Amino acid sequence: MERKSIAPDGSEYELPSEERTEEEKDMIKEIVEEQKEKGKKIVVVQGLGFVGAVNAAVISNCEVDGEYPYYVIGVDLPNENSFWKIEKINQAESPFNVEDPRVQEMVEEGRKNDRLGATWVKEAYSLADIVIVDINLDVSKKEKGNIEDFDVNIGPFENAMKNIGENIDSDTLVLVETTVPPGTTEKIIKPIIEEELKKRGFDVDENPPLIAHSYERVMPGEKYVDSIINMWRTYSGINDRSTEHAEDFLSDLINTEDYPLWNLRKPVASEMGKILENSYRAMNIAFIHEWTLMAEDVGVNLFEVVDSISVREGTHDNMMYPGFGVGGYCLPEDPLLGEWASQELFGRNEELSFSKRAVKINDLMPLHTYDLIEEGLSGKVSGKKVCVLGASYRKDVDDTRNSPTVTLYDEIVDNGGNPVIHDPYADNIEGREDIEVYDDLDEVLFKSDAVVFVQPHKKYLDLPMEEITSKIEDEGCVVDAFDILDDKKIKYLKEQGIHVSGVGKGHIRDL
Amino acid sequence: MERKSIAPDGSEYELPSEERTEEEKDMIKEIVEEQKEKGKKIVVVQGLGFVGAVNAAVISNCEVDGEYPYYVIGVDLPNENSFWKIEKINQAESPFNVEDPRVQEMVEEGRKNDRLGATWVKEAYSLADIVIVDINLDVSKKEKGNIEDFDVNIGPFENAMKNIGENIDSDTLVLVETTVPPGTTEKIIKPIIEEELKKRGFDVDENPPLIAHSYERVMPGEKYVDSIINMWRTYSGINDRSTEHAEDFLSDLINTEDYPLWNLRKPVASEMGKILENSYRAMNIAFIHEWTLMAEDVGVNLFEVVDSISVREGTHDNMMYPGFGVGGYCLPEDPLLGEWASQELFGRNEELSFSKRAVKINDLMPLHTYDLIEEGLSGKVSGKKVCVLGASYRKDVDDTRNSPTVTLYDEIVDNGGNPVIHDPYADNIEGREDIEVYDDLDEVLFKSDAVVFVQPHKKYLDLPMEEITSKIEDEGCVVDAFDILDDKKIKYLKEQGIHVSGVGKGHIRDL
Repeated sequence: MERKSIAPDGSEYELPSEERTEEEKDMIKEIVEEQKEKGKKIVVVQGLGFVGAVNAAVISNCEVDGEYPYYVIGVDLPNENSFWKIEKINQAESPFNVEDPRVQEMVEEGRKNDRLGATWVKEAYSLADIVIVDINLDVSKKEKGNIEDFDVNIGPFENAMKNIGENIDSDTLVLVETTVPPGTTEKIIKPIIEEELKKRGFDVDENPPLIAHSYERVMPGEKYVDSIINMWRTYSGINDRSTEHAEDFLSDLINTEDYPLWNLRKPVASEMGKILENSYRAMNIAFIHEWTLMAEDVGVNLFEVVDSISVREGTHDNMMYPGFGVGGYCLPEDPLLGEWASQELFGRNEELSFSKRAVKINDLMPLHTYDLIEEGLSGKVSGKKVCVLGASYRKDVDDTRNSPTVTLYDEIVDNGGNPVIHDPYADNIEGREDIEVYDDLDEVLFKSDAVVFVQPHKKYLDLPMEEITSKIEDEGCVVDAFDILDDKKIKYLKEQGIHVSGVGKGHIRDL
Repeated sequence: MERKSIAPDGSEYELPSEERTEEEKDMIKEIVEEQKEKGKKIVVVQGLGFVGAVNAAVISNCEVDGEYPYYVIGVDLPNENSFWKIEKINQAESPFNVEDPRVQEMVEEGRKNDRLGATWVKEAYSLADIVIVDINLDVSKKEKGNIEDFDVNIGPFENAMKNIGENIDSDTLVLVETTVPPGTTEKIIKPIIEEELKKRGFDVDENPPLIAHSYERVMPGEKYVDSIINMWRTYSGINDRSTEHAEDFLSDLINTEDYPLWNLRKPVASEMGKILENSYRAMNIAFIHEWTLMAEDVGVNLFEVVDSISVREGTHDNMMYPGFGVGGYCLPEDPLLGEWASQELFGRNEELSFSKRAVKINDLMPLHTYDLIEEGLSGKVSGKKVCVLGASYRKDVDDTRNSPTVTLYDEIVDNGGNPVIHDPYADNIEGREDIEVYDDLDEVLFKSDAVVFVQPHKKYLDLPMEEITSKIEDEGCVVDAFDILDDKKIKYLKEQGIHVSGVGKGHIRDL
């Protein structure tokens, strides 16, 4: 049977044959030779996911004194999940549909001007001046909210490092941008690469490998490219030469005039920085969720209270609002990478208890919205049509990675209800192809028993309440899980006899 | 036996006799009549502690269109603990020695210009247009770090409200500034005051009492007065008239041009605001402590990592640094007021778990500094002279309320060591008069075995390291618990053979 890799847009790509792979190896070599003659440095980006694909495009457009010093080769695996990304880039198409139009422009520019390509052959690493590691390092939980029995999928990551070690020159800089457990660069990556270099006869004492860590702070959305270029960057190498090489490259890529680089003393400090900042954010979200429940119980609109506090600039201005739940790759997983490192890489006993508890609370947060639905339907969810408005995990993007909508969906199903998911941007949910995501809002709302707003997408903020009142069933309910409805709209719905409640909006009962 | 109230400066005041109290009542009445004739409003401030005394002085200097509309009477109890504050104010002396010179100036101005007085007679409340509640509502813990078995001393607070209710007119605004468990104004204060008004024949249905909550954000230090006047203020009354009266008064007092007032819908929202913001801060401190321990174990300078993250303005710029411990009235207690309200006033079961854990970690934080001392002294603290540099709970102030130095002191004593406490500002520790606080640094350092920097007071930041090396015993150690020593100083000490460690400074071992 012919194996294919299918892109989200439906395009199908046959996986490469051995013959094609052999040809590819020759072609890559030729391209690189040509580019090196032109004086270009070869940057190989390992991993063409959400970060790597965009990163490759951005680096290929990195301009220094009117020149484009880098030729970029994106590398991913020739399997069903990933091969389409390689083909897309080579067809001058961004593999991901992102809100920032500059991403597609940069892929086109990179291809058109012969500064960007993508491949699946590992030999690319052997031609690189710089290998950038942009693959994922995932946490697997037995189930959401289970923070005692989780694991870090270190195996595939180790294999990827082995791939690099088997191919690179001892003078290639390996720049790890992946979010990793603190200690990974020196305790996992360095030994693997040294071992592979030694196998190939390199003297790693004489010529220690060049490895550095510098985490990205990529943020999907309209400012995707800016979140790479115009963003603070921390870095640290395993030795002085690694640090210098990383600094040279980052100075070319980042707008260091406005965002000077932060050199930390050791890779473990840089690795810790990323985990610390995401743990902090995850905790601040979980913290507010505890107060959200309290605010509802005591009749307070917590959004207003947070507003009255976050005017205190510099100390309280980043206080989170109540919300529906947390998604993406970072916040549900990164805090556990810290705990894993603490135990597994450093043998510590003390817990990072705030981080762990944050993940637990955030994972289960959508169940609170379920409780409000159940309450709004007088305890009877079974057989009811529940419209969930929002499938992505952030407003006005189509990103559905670890979307909290899934948790709510499953809970409704488990209770016999009929969830119908709508999103104006996303047309499916990553990893849960069994869940249909509709884009016809009229149809979704028609004869619904509960309408649940979970993302403040523009379309929902602009939705006239008559669209709901004209379609919802008698004794229906509306749940506002993310401050999508203002008091005027809520009052109107209540006047029409609809039960309304909202996450963090205890004041609704008095409206 | 004659009973006296003794001020911290040693001045002694005889407690008032019945005769003097009778005279006082008449005098207060006379003064108020005179002031009312001049068109002044009478503001009675209940509680002349750290907040109330300064608040009284500030209100007495509140200028509106070139006029001073308020005559202020500070009220406290005629007992040994408090009576001296009344006498001090009447002698035109600020009861507290604070860094902000404007406090003393305002007390003087208020007295000189006949806009400020202080008394102990409850009849003052009967003459008030506004009563401001600035008394404390304390949490009592069985021991530090015990967050399961704590209590809120609500009794004295209820008595104070009863005193007000027994005396005020139904048209007096009671403005509660005390940090209270959310729900207190409506569930505790309102019923008490209504009950007392009813006893005196008022019809509280016809004329509901005027009660509002508006928490202060007073911060000891150089900007004490600014922290009242130039600071955001949230408020909410139990009914519309209360809210309006509170708004009128606060508009006079606060610089509302730069800090517009925040009116929340209900007192419970205002009460919750204060607890939420202090719980948030307490949690952020405790969170960093967990990472502090990790940073030390893995050899990282966490101060640098935090710096590299907190450049992210608006999202991460308030990340805390590692530290020695937490003091003052707010952070060690307020988070528990939230938990108490949740359980006792609203019968909730869900925990405010982050708040509780924050208090536990912060209470016990100084024990980590003890561990570093013990390690620096190779496990032998018994019989050793341990200089602890810092008695106050904040840098460059003399405020010792709930000072974490006490926790360290007790731990050293329990382990047979000889702690010697130094502070350039504080000369004792509130509530622990058994602990001597010295101000001769030379003498304190002489023949010390361990020198522990716990507060970044200016004097310590400027201290030449030769002062230590010339006085410390052989095999002595230095512990930097609050980033007081830079790397150069630490290197110098290490070169002199002194064992140095620091809270959050895992990099010291590589220096």
